[in-house]
Amino acid sequence: MKKIKIGVIGVGRIGKMHIKNISNLRDMFEIVSISDPVNPKLAEIAQEYGIKNYYQNYQDVLNDDIDAVVIASSTDTHAEIITAAAQSGKQIMCEKPIDTDIDRIKKVLKIIDDCGVTLQIGFNRRFDHNFRKIHDYVVNDVVGSPHIIKVSSRDPEPPSYDYIKVSGGLFSDMMIHDLDMVRYLSNSEVTEVYAQGTVLVDSEIGKLGDIDTAIVSLKFANGALGVIDNSRQAVYGYDQRAEVFGSKGQAFTENDKDSNVELDLNDGGHLDKIPYFFIDRYVQAYIDEFKEFYNSIVNGTKPMVTGLDGLRAVQLAFACKESLEKHEPIKLNFD
Amino acid sequence: MKKIKIGVIGVGRIGKMHIKNISNLRDMFEIVSISDPVNPKLAEIAQEYGIKNYYQNYQDVLNDDIDAVVIASSTDTHAEIITAAAQSGKQIMCEKPIDTDIDRIKKVLKIIDDCGVTLQIGFNRRFDHNFRKIHDYVVNDVVGSPHIIKVSSRDPEPPSYDYIKVSGGLFSDMMIHDLDMVRYLSNSEVTEVYAQGTVLVDSEIGKLGDIDTAIVSLKFANGALGVIDNSRQAVYGYDQRAEVFGSKGQAFTENDKDSNVELDLNDGGHLDKIPYFFIDRYVQAYIDEFKEFYNSIVNGTKPMVTGLDGLRAVQLAFACKESLEKHEPIKLNFD
Amino acid sequence: MKKIKIGVIGVGRIGKMHIKNISNLRDMFEIVSISDPVNPKLAEIAQEYGIKNYYQNYQDVLNDDIDAVVIASSTDTHAEIITAAAQSGKQIMCEKPIDTDIDRIKKVLKIIDDCGVTLQIGFNRRFDHNFRKIHDYVVNDVVGSPHIIKVSSRDPEPPSYDYIKVSGGLFSDMMIHDLDMVRYLSNSEVTEVYAQGTVLVDSEIGKLGDIDTAIVSLKFANGALGVIDNSRQAVYGYDQRAEVFGSKGQAFTENDKDSNVELDLNDGGHLDKIPYFFIDRYVQAYIDEFKEFYNSIVNGTKPMVTGLDGLRAVQLAFACKESLEKHEPIKLNFD
Amino acid sequence: MKKIKIGVIGVGRIGKMHIKNISNLRDMFEIVSISDPVNPKLAEIAQEYGIKNYYQNYQDVLNDDIDAVVIASSTDTHAEIITAAAQSGKQIMCEKPIDTDIDRIKKVLKIIDDCGVTLQIGFNRRFDHNFRKIHDYVVNDVVGSPHIIKVSSRDPEPPSYDYIKVSGGLFSDMMIHDLDMVRYLSNSEVTEVYAQGTVLVDSEIGKLGDIDTAIVSLKFANGALGVIDNSRQAVYGYDQRAEVFGSKGQAFTENDKDSNVELDLNDGGHLDKIPYFFIDRYVQAYIDEFKEFYNSIVNGTKPMVTGLDGLRAVQLAFACKESLEKHEPIKLNFD
Repeated sequence: MKKIKIGVIGVGRIGKMHIKNISNLRDMFEIVSISDPVNPKLAEIAQEYGIKNYYQNYQDVLNDDIDAVVIASSTDTHAEIITAAAQSGKQIMCEKPIDTDIDRIKKVLKIIDDCGVTLQIGFNRRFDHNFRKIHDYVVNDVVGSPHIIKVSSRDPEPPSYDYIKVSGGLFSDMMIHDLDMVRYLSNSEVTEVYAQGTVLVDSEIGKLGDIDTAIVSLKFANGALGVIDNSRQAVYGYDQRAEVFGSKGQAFTENDKDSNVELDLNDGGHLDKIPYFFIDRYVQAYIDEFKEFYNSIVNGTKPMVTGLDGLRAVQLAFACKESLEKHEPIKLNFD
Repeated sequence: MKKIKIGVIGVGRIGKMHIKNISNLRDMFEIVSISDPVNPKLAEIAQEYGIKNYYQNYQDVLNDDIDAVVIASSTDTHAEIITAAAQSGKQIMCEKPIDTDIDRIKKVLKIIDDCGVTLQIGFNRRFDHNFRKIHDYVVNDVVGSPHIIKVSSRDPEPPSYDYIKVSGGLFSDMMIHDLDMVRYLSNSEVTEVYAQGTVLVDSEIGKLGDIDTAIVSLKFANGALGVIDNSRQAVYGYDQRAEVFGSKGQAFTENDKDSNVELDLNDGGHLDKIPYFFIDRYVQAYIDEFKEFYNSIVNGTKPMVTGLDGLRAVQLAFACKESLEKHEPIKLNFD
Repeated sequence: MKKIKIGVIGVGRIGKMHIKNISNLRDMFEIVSISDPVNPKLAEIAQEYGIKNYYQNYQDVLNDDIDAVVIASSTDTHAEIITAAAQSGKQIMCEKPIDTDIDRIKKVLKIIDDCGVTLQIGFNRRFDHNFRKIHDYVVNDVVGSPHIIKVSSRDPEPPSYDYIKVSGGLFSDMMIHDLDMVRYLSNSEVTEVYAQGTVLVDSEIGKLGDIDTAIVSLKFANGALGVIDNSRQAVYGYDQRAEVFGSKGQAFTENDKDSNVELDLNDGGHLDKIPYFFIDRYVQAYIDEFKEFYNSIVNGTKPMVTGLDGLRAVQLAFACKESLEKHEPIKLNFD
Repeated sequence: MKKIKIGVIGVGRIGKMHIKNISNLRDMFEIVSISDPVNPKLAEIAQEYGIKNYYQNYQDVLNDDIDAVVIASSTDTHAEIITAAAQSGKQIMCEKPIDTDIDRIKKVLKIIDDCGVTLQIGFNRRFDHNFRKIHDYVVNDVVGSPHIIKVSSRDPEPPSYDYIKVSGGLFSDMMIHDLDMVRYLSNSEVTEVYAQGTVLVDSEIGKLGDIDTAIVSLKFANGALGVIDNSRQAVYGYDQRAEVFGSKGQAFTENDKDSNVELDLNDGGHLDKIPYFFIDRYVQAYIDEFKEFYNSIVNGTKPMVTGLDGLRAVQLAFACKESLEKHEPIKLNFD
């Protein structure tokens, strides 16, 4: 099997996790170079993982003899780096969101198209064992025509106020994963959203102009209805559940737990906590998205999460925000 | 313990079930008389349960020496019978809905008030072991302030076309139970609804002017958000689930199953079906609502489901219908 | 459907429960008379359930115009009453054990045989929804040939010392139900037992010559192996589980819980307690054993639990005791 | 953190898995050399994982500049290699069993002791998330004094006849893991065993002098009773469960499943299969045992599985075999 030579651009928390995961996929990838404009430990990381080159400037990565890049830099640099990478003929795996401006995203997608390279977006949850199983039950017609799609997604705690200020708001920062998930699970396109949002967790979040609790109702092109609920703070852990109800039955998933042990005491039964947050919960999904990236490159197939998926998620997040502001349902028109 | 002498007005399927259940509560009730204008087997039923009197006319029941009546006749007779019963000083347990006209319901509630009798409405699900447990976790502050209320309620199969024609539609006929349930679980009042509805199960239902699949988003006076989803046809059985997510945690219930047996074969694990429909699923709840009725009479306390609860559920169902028709959120103004 | 006229002999705790359950099976049974030599509330109970006759002497019950009797008197009276009832041609439902002397049991069974009446033994757990489901999976060959049979059965608290003194010991008093259960679930006969027993719950129980914790290994005529574990004190409730592992798969059951609600707090997940003891746990099984009794009488079929089953359970309990005392495996020889 | 320089002796299926797992623990270990007398792909493997040296002879590994060795060669070579490794001052992680001769094991343990090196045995299941959690509940007194210990362990399919011929039999080859597990879960020593064994899966296994189905009853030094059941063929997958019942409650674990998805169709509920076999089931446990090895070396602490644990497991397996042959309980005397 051919090994893909790869560079990683952006070595923050997620970038480092990708480096570790890719390094463990020894028969698929060889990390040739990494870059980060500010991380002071680049040399150390390069040594630990046996990576030849490390740079401050991402352009140096693109100049190396590599087949593909992973872009895990800050969102505002994505469009520029994707463009440069595509133009130098690299296959691209980019963290979500592609950008916060829809026109800019469309321009980027056109460049990807023109350059004929692969762009995979980091919607890692699509690779989760639970959600992929539900998706498979839908596409294999096990649950029949989808009638109702439900996603519950709640973080264990809100991000910092500093982050909230620049995050673009709950819909763009948090629900965007769930908006992608309902598209994945329904195997269809969203045609309308109606958003309810409120501040119940921390009034300070409201003062920063954001919400912390939301329910979005959805309609799909295939006729199904759907609903997503989000909270910035589930004190019991990172709540990640979904359900598809269809003409032949339903498939739903409970949360993963740290162990399967049930403890029975004289005050009742006790179960383990669910994993704390995404790094713990989606360990394998973060690995599997690189297997997908590898396969799509080697086989010349479309990855499971394309640039168009990246665009749609942003468009849906914006429509939710508009719905909340106008207090009315918003139709989606994808031209 | 004092025994309540009771009459049962309306001996159809539900009326007969009530007769059986009340008869088994020997230390609480004695059924003195029953009436039904059309049931040809009244004498037989009276004999089986050792009931002294049986009549065609409900007025005869009211003239008997009884303390209380159960009204399980057709909806269009409720207002009249409640009025007559209240005016003759009987305690009243009435099936939902009280009526299909909000002004008439209000008039009935005023009469109840004036006559100083108890009116309990047959929202039996409030007495279910699962939902009552969640409710208790809410009122005892175990889950903290409610943030998100979710109810899934799906029938195993649609009613007959004849029934759908006169049912008042999915919101009034089916979701009314769930609209009561979210009030019960949230321990609060609904202030706004947004309804999505569609026809996915059977296009004939659409031709009759009804829907068979619906999602309703809700806002509550206590700030919580909520969502109800309904389908007229869950092929796997009578799907009855709920969840309250709050500041301290969440409580949710899965469906009851016929047994707790897991069967593991070489194609995976297998679980029992869930009960087929409400008669099977809510066996104990139908019994327990009469224990509540008994206690409210003997102790002179308000029953867990009052006439006002009956009114609110109808008002909410109407608001859902209006929201679906206008394609916009509807605010509730309870004057 | 023909109604069976029935008398209840012995009106203690279990007898009263049977009276209530039989009374609620209106279309099957009519209780004509009850008797108890010491219960001072017989008249009251007779009135509550509309029972015509009540006596101190069981012979008066047998003299009444009845088809069948329920024997819920103390164990030492079973043999005598069964004999008298059989000789007067009554169908018989008798609580376990038939007797504590194997020769006397055999004599009783011969009389039953000679008189041509039905004798059903009160091994109520066979009628439980979970265990019956596993049994069905075995007899319908869903799990294939049984290889391993497992039963866990633990009481919530030990009986009184006074009771332990006369109980015949853990094997005869408590495990007897499980010895019947493994026969039921394996659909086979036990051929050998090896018993381990010890005192871990309360040393006072040991001083009374009994044990409170036991594990019994079993061999079955169909080649399967098995194991039963018992404890007199499971502080979390009445633990009742079973499993059959076979050539095609396995079926096992978890405990029933009071509700299906899962509560997730920041210290993990919480489940309801399991029911406290047999009266709560086997509500429906106690009812269903009378449906079986009715059907076996009306259809002239053998009941699901015969006198022979009653004999075998006692023989197995005795063999377990012998194994414990001799510290060696004991072969069963049923002549 | 200091990196441990390590050599891997024996590069078969398990050896290769260890190489992969150790390589991914970059901050703990550096694999310096590997050896295998027959594996023709050593050079290839060495290159894939960036390992400097590869040899046919294990002595060459010991001569390299390494701190520790992993011994994954065939059982008959363990004693010799452990001895040589210990005498050259290496820390040792060795696959189970240490040897098939108890005297030889004792001699090896004495050498380990004399040389002052660490010997960790590869009872990987102790590191499993489920079993470790139960163990923790025991040692932290959450379940109180252990009264009953239960382990179910069933393989998905029997090994080849060739393997069975040399395996030493079910107790030594398969149940040895469970004999270690009950010691781990009970936090105590086994004092007596009684073994039942039979051939139900494949009569050919019986002709080879082995059994394929077994139940072993146990007594423990702390007074607890226990039971292990084994089958060579669970058609539904690799069944791995355990339970500890104690004075304060119980802890038990169900099997892991591939996903948490429940599928509800009109024939009931469906769950995923459990993982097929140990490589799939114990992925993380195989990794975590090397974290333990690392920590025990760096901190100079005893590993969670010592040489003595390796000895005890073999002694117990032999006692089970003796019990089966003599058809009587066997006391354990550890001098």
